[in-house]
Amino acid sequence: MPNRFSLASDNVAPVHPAILAAIERANHGPAPSYGHDAWTDAAVSRFRSVFGDGTEVLVVANGTAANVLGLRARVDSYHAVLCAETSHLWRDECSAPEHFLGAKLVPIDSPDGKLTPELVRPFLRGFGFVHQAQPRAISVAQPTEWGTVYTEAELRALADLAHEHDMIFHVDGARLANAAVALGVPLGRLGADAGVDVLSFGGTKLGLLAAEAVLFFGPPSGGRSAFYRKQAMQLLSKLRFFSAQLEALLAGDLWHELAGHANAMATRLGAGLAAIDGFELVRPVQTNAVFVRMPETAVEPLRREADFYLWDPADSVARLMTAWNTEPEPIDRFVAAAAALAR
Amino acid sequence: MPNRFSLASDNVAPVHPAILAAIERANHGPAPSYGHDAWTDAAVSRFRSVFGDGTEVLVVANGTAANVLGLRARVDSYHAVLCAETSHLWRDECSAPEHFLGAKLVPIDSPDGKLTPELVRPFLRGFGFVHQAQPRAISVAQPTEWGTVYTEAELRALADLAHEHDMIFHVDGARLANAAVALGVPLGRLGADAGVDVLSFGGTKLGLLAAEAVLFFGPPSGGRSAFYRKQAMQLLSKLRFFSAQLEALLAGDLWHELAGHANAMATRLGAGLAAIDGFELVRPVQTNAVFVRMPETAVEPLRREADFYLWDPADSVARLMTAWNTEPEPIDRFVAAAAALAR
Amino acid sequence: MPNRFSLASDNVAPVHPAILAAIERANHGPAPSYGHDAWTDAAVSRFRSVFGDGTEVLVVANGTAANVLGLRARVDSYHAVLCAETSHLWRDECSAPEHFLGAKLVPIDSPDGKLTPELVRPFLRGFGFVHQAQPRAISVAQPTEWGTVYTEAELRALADLAHEHDMIFHVDGARLANAAVALGVPLGRLGADAGVDVLSFGGTKLGLLAAEAVLFFGPPSGGRSAFYRKQAMQLLSKLRFFSAQLEALLAGDLWHELAGHANAMATRLGAGLAAIDGFELVRPVQTNAVFVRMPETAVEPLRREADFYLWDPADSVARLMTAWNTEPEPIDRFVAAAAALAR
Amino acid sequence: MPNRFSLASDNVAPVHPAILAAIERANHGPAPSYGHDAWTDAAVSRFRSVFGDGTEVLVVANGTAANVLGLRARVDSYHAVLCAETSHLWRDECSAPEHFLGAKLVPIDSPDGKLTPELVRPFLRGFGFVHQAQPRAISVAQPTEWGTVYTEAELRALADLAHEHDMIFHVDGARLANAAVALGVPLGRLGADAGVDVLSFGGTKLGLLAAEAVLFFGPPSGGRSAFYRKQAMQLLSKLRFFSAQLEALLAGDLWHELAGHANAMATRLGAGLAAIDGFELVRPVQTNAVFVRMPETAVEPLRREADFYLWDPADSVARLMTAWNTEPEPIDRFVAAAAALAR
Repeated sequence: MPNRFSLASDNVAPVHPAILAAIERANHGPAPSYGHDAWTDAAVSRFRSVFGDGTEVLVVANGTAANVLGLRARVDSYHAVLCAETSHLWRDECSAPEHFLGAKLVPIDSPDGKLTPELVRPFLRGFGFVHQAQPRAISVAQPTEWGTVYTEAELRALADLAHEHDMIFHVDGARLANAAVALGVPLGRLGADAGVDVLSFGGTKLGLLAAEAVLFFGPPSGGRSAFYRKQAMQLLSKLRFFSAQLEALLAGDLWHELAGHANAMATRLGAGLAAIDGFELVRPVQTNAVFVRMPETAVEPLRREADFYLWDPADSVARLMTAWNTEPEPIDRFVAAAAALAR
Repeated sequence: MPNRFSLASDNVAPVHPAILAAIERANHGPAPSYGHDAWTDAAVSRFRSVFGDGTEVLVVANGTAANVLGLRARVDSYHAVLCAETSHLWRDECSAPEHFLGAKLVPIDSPDGKLTPELVRPFLRGFGFVHQAQPRAISVAQPTEWGTVYTEAELRALADLAHEHDMIFHVDGARLANAAVALGVPLGRLGADAGVDVLSFGGTKLGLLAAEAVLFFGPPSGGRSAFYRKQAMQLLSKLRFFSAQLEALLAGDLWHELAGHANAMATRLGAGLAAIDGFELVRPVQTNAVFVRMPETAVEPLRREADFYLWDPADSVARLMTAWNTEPEPIDRFVAAAAALAR
Repeated sequence: MPNRFSLASDNVAPVHPAILAAIERANHGPAPSYGHDAWTDAAVSRFRSVFGDGTEVLVVANGTAANVLGLRARVDSYHAVLCAETSHLWRDECSAPEHFLGAKLVPIDSPDGKLTPELVRPFLRGFGFVHQAQPRAISVAQPTEWGTVYTEAELRALADLAHEHDMIFHVDGARLANAAVALGVPLGRLGADAGVDVLSFGGTKLGLLAAEAVLFFGPPSGGRSAFYRKQAMQLLSKLRFFSAQLEALLAGDLWHELAGHANAMATRLGAGLAAIDGFELVRPVQTNAVFVRMPETAVEPLRREADFYLWDPADSVARLMTAWNTEPEPIDRFVAAAAALAR
Repeated sequence: MPNRFSLASDNVAPVHPAILAAIERANHGPAPSYGHDAWTDAAVSRFRSVFGDGTEVLVVANGTAANVLGLRARVDSYHAVLCAETSHLWRDECSAPEHFLGAKLVPIDSPDGKLTPELVRPFLRGFGFVHQAQPRAISVAQPTEWGTVYTEAELRALADLAHEHDMIFHVDGARLANAAVALGVPLGRLGADAGVDVLSFGGTKLGLLAAEAVLFFGPPSGGRSAFYRKQAMQLLSKLRFFSAQLEALLAGDLWHELAGHANAMATRLGAGLAAIDGFELVRPVQTNAVFVRMPETAVEPLRREADFYLWDPADSVARLMTAWNTEPEPIDRFVAAAAALAR
């Protein structure tokens, strides 16, 4: 099984060798635990040089924790968080946000997984009305779960809308690097520069073993976020080994290389499939996800070529994810097999 | 700093080479995420061969999460968990148990960090009285935060007391291997065999990068505990790299080698210090912790020899922790320095 | 202000004299607190004779508490509760359900505030998938917040759907009596007989000072629900005065008289307005609520006749609520004023 | 049963006629719901004239809710609340504080139920240490569950200690009026004047049907506390009937009359019993509670004279509570019966 070609998810990929090497380099002698170590200092410095000097950084182990902790520091229990109905936050975190925040998530329908001021505005209601959870955060994923990307202007428009209503703008950047590569901008342009207040920065799906960061761009939390991390059971004792991964990812543009490769493989895959009769891209391929409608009869034969999820079985839409280690040859074989099935 | 001798904690130690090697071996090709991988299967099998076939196993990243999740599956929000006032659960988890369970922790004073039926019995009250949180779990640490160890009979007595009152017996085994070595018993004798219902099995302090397991010995949870893990933000996507560490720890008795070494170093250190005038062991050295009262004037000079915590500054009691990588030479130098100061 | 005619809500109405008299009758000498009193016993007996012998009854002070406690006894923190987007549970309880349950509410759009199997079915997904909150309850309001009523067959269809998926069927009956009168059935037909598992039975809006009951028809909770009530801060010490209100409401069909009157006044009001040019009922008048679209220019002049809420200002739709104390004369004056404005 | 003499608790007493009369006076015509009514305005004005102009007032239905909401507005989930081990907050609220706050309660042993700076100081530790819940509130009951009273100087000393550590001072005044009468001071001297930041003001035990108030003396919450009340399921729709009780209690010194009577009856009872051989007051009688050790053989015969709780069965200590309606004759009969038993 480990050697089978997989388009199931970017988190089935192994760890990039440079990341493992960073872990090994950190493995010498004692180091203060719980983040008081040199590798965490170095990772924080990297984040600050990318996203701005005042950035507050919390290193955690997974993306759900990053999202929930990022919101916790700014959202009270009587607040509501507005998010896309298709978002990971709404669908795939098993009520962790509701449970940890004690607050309400409000799902908003969106045709392509992206929120817009027009979609959000009807939900900006009930302010000051004690019966209703108060809108406090707009949360989007960049890129979305459909692989689609917000432009900087689109982010800024949502941020402005949030700030006009004394709300915060939260971004789930589990694959932020893929979005930055797609937009051709440095990572830093997708944080405070775009009006973002809290950002989940993803590493695991990009090629790390396990490490994400919560970045706060607003006024400092006065240490509160560190207590929330501990209370969320997310303060890792040997944090150096998690911080070292993030430091290595940001050093020398490794993030760009890994995300760029994954995106390119998805582009190659999407272009190949789009050219086949009976195969249709249901969303534009902008990052490392290809959503394709295929003939029902093609599903099982193609699954012999690669693992993947049937995203919408009723509509025969598959999700094909590429990763840092996806190679062009099996992509081409997969496209060829699809073409053969179409004939 | 990374190269300085440290007796601060077993979690300042690096990762054992065999563990890093296991991570590297797991790093080939794609693998199903979220625990549906061969390494997790292998780790679960190891735990079952050690602790019994019906053992339910959840791999998580840290000890606080292991404790809280272990309790969550058996404790309702109107329940109370009885624990020692000195326990990690009570003191060092920043209300994570109260927050995640919504339940009450009740601290019990104990002279040596160990609970006994005599100490617990006065707290077994109010059953059926709707105003009071209902006693539901007795939780102890094996070994305790003082490094002291429960005998099998002592565990059994607490388990019996719990079961007589329809309560569960929970053990925080963040350093369980050190206790097993101290008692000269296989690990499996400290689980269901001793009447334990839920056990946190620790790996990180023993030499892992980060991995712990929650072991359930009672009736199966019907999958509930897996949902709690996800909701607790503790379901790691690339779980193979965490499971592989635990698998390697249990294979070939590595756990015994690492815990045995740490214990032996503590014994050596304790014996050395106890022989010095003005130094006094305030707790018996049973595992890898040495609690020693020393002359106030010795504290700062000895801190130049090694990092350590002054556990009780008012009483000049220091905690000295050894780990898998503690070497005898710096131990002996530390003792010699202490002896020189005493003269 | 107290003497002004109001169509704002049924909870602006005073307490019915028979209810105050019942409170006074209960006010003699000491009585055991916290529900161990004769009035609570009598109220429980009344509920059992109406809804079935095995009914478990919890008396509480308000409707939000009734809904949340009813769900708490059957819903775990990793569960999801499916409800109408327009429901009180989703909109008007300030995240109390999410906060107290730690679980997810999922809103479902519905044109008339009523759920149907067709509307619910697409949300019955993800069972067993650890990333998603597990659908566990279908919750509806009877009548809905639009004043519309489920037939017994409609309730049964939703109950069957729930039970097929090992879910429970929860009904918010804050105005259940109004629905029973509208349907011409005894109250008991809208509980277990209709497949309901947990029912919030409302009294306050019907003419009580403050009292609601949670009714459980399923397997007994073994006392758990009583602990949840205490933990929810809803166990009133002098419970006799709350139970006595419910007992009086169920004795001698007072509930029927009060709900019947309120419904009849709404019918009268609705019929009067529907006959006026430019006024249009946007929902059928089935209980004690009239939703009417009116000329924008009529809003302010009519507000001089009576207090009411403009439900949808953009569409000039007003909500007019009648209550046990609404008299026909001011209703007729209101209609006449509307007619005069229309000319 | 309703006519039997009871010393079980002050909450077994009925409602004082003046309070019922106030409820009846409020029962005319419609009134805005949820606290936007004239009776709530009047109650708030009364509280402000007693406790100071800036006092923020929340009316709720019971004492547990008052305590928990009072703390919620000032205590975050990573905080700890220090309280007496014998306090209602610790013992008798079924984890409601832990559940609603998500925070830690820390019990402190005290010989007479009163905290002192000396008792509290050892628990003021771990500030800034991310592993430990941060001490944030000192909470005491005035009077205590033993009926003992803090002097103004004692309150001030605890308040000063709290404020020195950037903590708040919270007082559970479920029976505050009894304490004020005992001290011979106006109610207002036991609020902000004594350094209190948040006060639960009790009415139910004093003779109300059900009504308590949370009083905030510190900086205004900006409306947050109103949202917490709604989220805690404590916003009553017909609030006028609860506010009217509190208004009547504060008008014309009814509170003083009721508390004074209850205290006097306890004094009479205590003095009578103390004079009997074999009966011993185990706490000074300062308010309306008498804790008396009696011969074991006296317990059952005396229970035929009156209901009461055996507080500590092992030590044969009974708690005898008087109330606004306790009459001297049955008190004297009870004392006479005790004297007869002693002979």
